[in-house]
Amino acid sequence: MKPTQSKPAPAEPGEPATALDLLFVGAGEVFSDGAARTGVVVGVRGADIVYVGPADAAPAAREVIDLKGGLLTPGLVDPHTHLVFAGDRAGEYAERSAGTSYLEIARRGGGIARTMHATRAASVETLMALARPRLDQLLQCGVTTAEVKSGYGLTPADERKMLEVVRRLDAEHPIDLVATFLGAHTVPPGVDRARYLDAVVGEMLPDIAEAGLAEFCDVFIEKGAFDIAEGRRVLEAGLKYGLRPKVHADQLSAGGGAELAAEVGAVSADHLEHISSTGIDALAAAGTVAVLLPGAAMFLGSDDRAPARALADRGVPVALSTDCNPGTCHSTNLLLMLTLGMSRLGLTPAEVLDAVTVHAARAVGREAVAGRIAPGRPADLAIFDVATHRHLPYHFGMLPTRAVYKAGRQVYPTAA
Amino acid sequence: MKPTQSKPAPAEPGEPATALDLLFVGAGEVFSDGAARTGVVVGVRGADIVYVGPADAAPAAREVIDLKGGLLTPGLVDPHTHLVFAGDRAGEYAERSAGTSYLEIARRGGGIARTMHATRAASVETLMALARPRLDQLLQCGVTTAEVKSGYGLTPADERKMLEVVRRLDAEHPIDLVATFLGAHTVPPGVDRARYLDAVVGEMLPDIAEAGLAEFCDVFIEKGAFDIAEGRRVLEAGLKYGLRPKVHADQLSAGGGAELAAEVGAVSADHLEHISSTGIDALAAAGTVAVLLPGAAMFLGSDDRAPARALADRGVPVALSTDCNPGTCHSTNLLLMLTLGMSRLGLTPAEVLDAVTVHAARAVGREAVAGRIAPGRPADLAIFDVATHRHLPYHFGMLPTRAVYKAGRQVYPTAA
Repeated sequence: MKPTQSKPAPAEPGEPATALDLLFVGAGEVFSDGAARTGVVVGVRGADIVYVGPADAAPAAREVIDLKGGLLTPGLVDPHTHLVFAGDRAGEYAERSAGTSYLEIARRGGGIARTMHATRAASVETLMALARPRLDQLLQCGVTTAEVKSGYGLTPADERKMLEVVRRLDAEHPIDLVATFLGAHTVPPGVDRARYLDAVVGEMLPDIAEAGLAEFCDVFIEKGAFDIAEGRRVLEAGLKYGLRPKVHADQLSAGGGAELAAEVGAVSADHLEHISSTGIDALAAAGTVAVLLPGAAMFLGSDDRAPARALADRGVPVALSTDCNPGTCHSTNLLLMLTLGMSRLGLTPAEVLDAVTVHAARAVGREAVAGRIAPGRPADLAIFDVATHRHLPYHFGMLPTRAVYKAGRQVYPTAA
Repeated sequence: MKPTQSKPAPAEPGEPATALDLLFVGAGEVFSDGAARTGVVVGVRGADIVYVGPADAAPAAREVIDLKGGLLTPGLVDPHTHLVFAGDRAGEYAERSAGTSYLEIARRGGGIARTMHATRAASVETLMALARPRLDQLLQCGVTTAEVKSGYGLTPADERKMLEVVRRLDAEHPIDLVATFLGAHTVPPGVDRARYLDAVVGEMLPDIAEAGLAEFCDVFIEKGAFDIAEGRRVLEAGLKYGLRPKVHADQLSAGGGAELAAEVGAVSADHLEHISSTGIDALAAAGTVAVLLPGAAMFLGSDDRAPARALADRGVPVALSTDCNPGTCHSTNLLLMLTLGMSRLGLTPAEVLDAVTVHAARAVGREAVAGRIAPGRPADLAIFDVATHRHLPYHFGMLPTRAVYKAGRQVYPTAA
């Protein structure tokens, strides 16, 4: 969360006290919470939306912004990223594409371990400098809130360093960052499994919780990472320290991760390419958000698709995310994920928009402040050079973002 | 092809006559024709590359451009687009994603027929205004040469109109455009099949050839489009008028299109998701380029993959393209196709770079002037904010293009 936004300049003498600072008119559509509205204007005072309705009932405004038929949406929310890291894995990507197995790459010191070594070796300042352009790219997609995970440090000091980077980036960048502790990403090479889990639960969690460096605690449930019992132990310990659970679940194989997420009341279960039917029902009953990451399967060359249609049809809120990370999805293009959400996952245009606004906000605990255009909410807004919400996913791989506002202030593009 | 480029200002008195206009130094890599070279500088005089080699042997230059570790490649070539069209099919995309079959969409008047009606109704000026931003987006990917097809007019006057648009856009836009006549895209609704083919062969082809409006003649070989005998008739008629053959082959089913392409000596066979083993051998023997369009399968939600590895391994030059069109791949992001070429098709970084440079140039008959960085060739160059050619496909869905030069002149970004 940001420090309190500075207030805009006071109204000129003679202006009514209720005057708006900004009034957005002429939108082709105003999309929020599953509905595309036409003939609607949006008024902003200070950092907040204060009016959504017909133009003729809107208060006077000091500045009227004509959207000339563009699309107005809530600022987008990217609910699952690993965007703080050093080094890259372009060479490994080339090896995988040429047929080398992930196991063989890991055996040669690749995979998460490669990024862990580079991230441990980097200073806070270096990590910040590397992450800034990634945040700028997200902003260019219309993102105003993003989750960022630790998980490349894997020692108490290095996990804490990563989360310090998130805190400092949050303070300086227009995007609001939500921090998740992912000490249980993998057991670092050469470390005893039991001792590592003891350190996660007994050292890292209390330290990070006390410093207020994370809101969420995540575990990677997968063969080669952590099993259900280990994941339960970490998430329950996190809960004890006030960190809400998230789960990397059922990505490469059906492992009961979704069921665990539901059991511990996780706010989200992420990936889910191999979720079981029981798992879908469990998420629906628990009100857990399904965060789907179709870019990862794509980048990995897999035909896997999460059962988005079944999830949505059984009442699970479906979110979409970039999964931005150096190994399995080196992308910051959240708009591309809208297209994959339709083409690969069978969602509708309104569903993919909800998946990066209202449902994504819920997946990161920001349902009260992000993801909706409504009076009383922060004026986080994105404007796109497309006529309707259906045209946003239709633009495959392009960035039609015209402007982005955070808390009533234009943050993209910025004056040169 | 462009009109002759204007010459740069003459050298100042006292400068040697052999001085360069531009010298690109400091590239992380100079990539051309399958090879990434380090420690190499590139010198330009007027519109042409005149020096590639070590810095210490380079002639003096009036302007030295330090690439600061960026990647220098040939200007990219997009060898297969349908980017002149009116209307859009965003609604149809939503219907398909929701499960409506293409057949049902066609029955309701959708598909190519929808774009045909909109394109027929649009003026030359409207079509140009709609196509300009698409060309600008290609330029932003580093593209300096692109092929554009007709095929949404489907009457003698409307096919000619589309190709007039291509000619006028070629004259005004920095990207060199290569025109292909695709009258045999589909039989327009309500028109007798035999009479339509007679019109393609007897009216459109001679008219377009006489006006010099196309270099290539293409046919769509597919169930519901044209069969082998019909395709052969059109392509042989095209050859008679000096138009070199291209074929839309084996996209949705194995139909012998690749074999036909080889038989008529086509410069390229495009799509090929369902090419037979015999077809691969035929292309190899004929020297026909395989133009692969992985964005189309992706956008259509299909798991189909062209056998790129088998094609490359048996000696077929493999090119990649956007297939930019309103129905099956609404994308102008050629860099995204590099990522899909690796992740979906198993090509290597050097192969995907060759696929949008040297092989793509050959696929559009520009092998003598485009797709390579070598002395004597036009200075069509792209500069990317990545350290090596391996990092270009690794950036999934992003546009790290820093600058583009066409015939020695910077054309992206341009001064505001």
